[in-house]
Amino acid sequence: MTNQTTHPDQITIGVFDSGFGGLTVLRELLPLIPAARYLYLGDTARLPYGSKSRETIARYAVSSARFLLDQGADLLVIACNTATALALDDIRTAALPIPVLGVIEPGAQAAAKVTLAARESTGQTPGSQILVLATTATVQSHAYSHALARLSIHATEKACPLLVPLVEEGWIDHPVTREVARIYLSEALAEDRSINTLLLGCTHYPLLHPLLQQTLVDLGRPLTLIDSAQATAQAVAACFQQASPLRERKGALCTFYATDFTDKFERLGSRFLGQPLSGVHLIDLGG
Amino acid sequence: MTNQTTHPDQITIGVFDSGFGGLTVLRELLPLIPAARYLYLGDTARLPYGSKSRETIARYAVSSARFLLDQGADLLVIACNTATALALDDIRTAALPIPVLGVIEPGAQAAAKVTLAARESTGQTPGSQILVLATTATVQSHAYSHALARLSIHATEKACPLLVPLVEEGWIDHPVTREVARIYLSEALAEDRSINTLLLGCTHYPLLHPLLQQTLVDLGRPLTLIDSAQATAQAVAACFQQASPLRERKGALCTFYATDFTDKFERLGSRFLGQPLSGVHLIDLGG
Repeated sequence: MTNQTTHPDQITIGVFDSGFGGLTVLRELLPLIPAARYLYLGDTARLPYGSKSRETIARYAVSSARFLLDQGADLLVIACNTATALALDDIRTAALPIPVLGVIEPGAQAAAKVTLAARESTGQTPGSQILVLATTATVQSHAYSHALARLSIHATEKACPLLVPLVEEGWIDHPVTREVARIYLSEALAEDRSINTLLLGCTHYPLLHPLLQQTLVDLGRPLTLIDSAQATAQAVAACFQQASPLRERKGALCTFYATDFTDKFERLGSRFLGQPLSGVHLIDLGG
Repeated sequence: MTNQTTHPDQITIGVFDSGFGGLTVLRELLPLIPAARYLYLGDTARLPYGSKSRETIARYAVSSARFLLDQGADLLVIACNTATALALDDIRTAALPIPVLGVIEPGAQAAAKVTLAARESTGQTPGSQILVLATTATVQSHAYSHALARLSIHATEKACPLLVPLVEEGWIDHPVTREVARIYLSEALAEDRSINTLLLGCTHYPLLHPLLQQTLVDLGRPLTLIDSAQATAQAVAACFQQASPLRERKGALCTFYATDFTDKFERLGSRFLGQPLSGVHLIDLGG
């Protein structure tokens, strides 16, 4: 793709994550841009990125981005909060000349829109109005609070390291997960009464959307939930809608790659994608 | 070291794990063999091994073992259940000519001793007498049940994927961890009434020893707990005690290496080692 006005039925969208979580972004992309071809890469041999250093994450993410570029991607979606937070610039440099979109800017912009609308309608004094839930590495990078600060919004960030393993255990609607969510949310919300928006800053968290929403109600703090996965898919779609209306094609063409364990990828991945997933190609990126 | 009768104040013991967990083995080694030099390597850039395939784990573990061999290790302790379960033979081949001990045989033997003694004293009919708690990859390898079958004992294995993240969150004595332990243990114990021994088949679990013991009491099933970390340290010490009694040296010499994030290594590692830990060297094994 030479520019972002190319019609979507001529393009290949590369979607990259450290594991399965990015499939929640692909899930949102499929109905929005059904005419595109998709290449999905989960760097499952080297996951999780969330507990690793910036240098390591950048090295892993760049080699993954290059793989998708070599496979013919015309546009790259970094469907991984940690890789976007810590390595988007490195990936953009490595993946030139194709456009690279991360999940943080779209998520921050969608949350900011809700918060600014609420501020206007209620005349609420600005405080820490958005609560971001994310992995430890994403929180430590402060990528969301920096992105929101550029939009004149102060954010509270909360690392929730147990939510990913709970989702991967399949405890999507489980008393233990409800208790962990209650602990994390009440700790974070106790700090600031002015929070009105909850931003899900990890691609695993959309699977906990109903549980988190119920927990907020139980805590007496029914916030608006914004999902970075959904916001990112909309940002990608917006690139094309400016050019021409999207045409339908029967079933998008998806090719899946993983650096490890294809059976686990298929089993867990279907849960994230929201539909059966098969024929995953095992690839070796070294390491 | 040319054979296992060399005196311990002349030897260097290499201890390897994917992360911090193996420090529980080093913690047990220090008082047992205080005269040795220790090299500890945590392959933190590529952890966790527990969710990865045999081929990937073998590649990572072999490069780590070679690093410790190059640094002068005379004996290698694979202080990682997953690496022992899936890659001990590969490591032994790669690390020749030095001896390599894993955590599974010593743990299985210690548990078997307790179980066989109980069988003799109670005349209990043999059933599934040992319950092994471990990571998903260790359980899927059936390394413990194979090792115990060679000792004529049938084992029940239970994958507990949430216990490692709970320990790393620092929720060592926390209501959520108690509830997760209750769920895992009651699921596993419901299967067989003849279980009399609980084998901790992951180096993170010693930190949960008191919590697990209390949970068993609460469930009305007070089993004997066997810790693979402790059993392994005793197996290493036994190599030398056959040769000559161990001499004291003031404070063992430990050198720590990690493939990522030395600050996290120091912070979390001290918890596992049971004493302050500093001066971790960051190394690159590629990948």
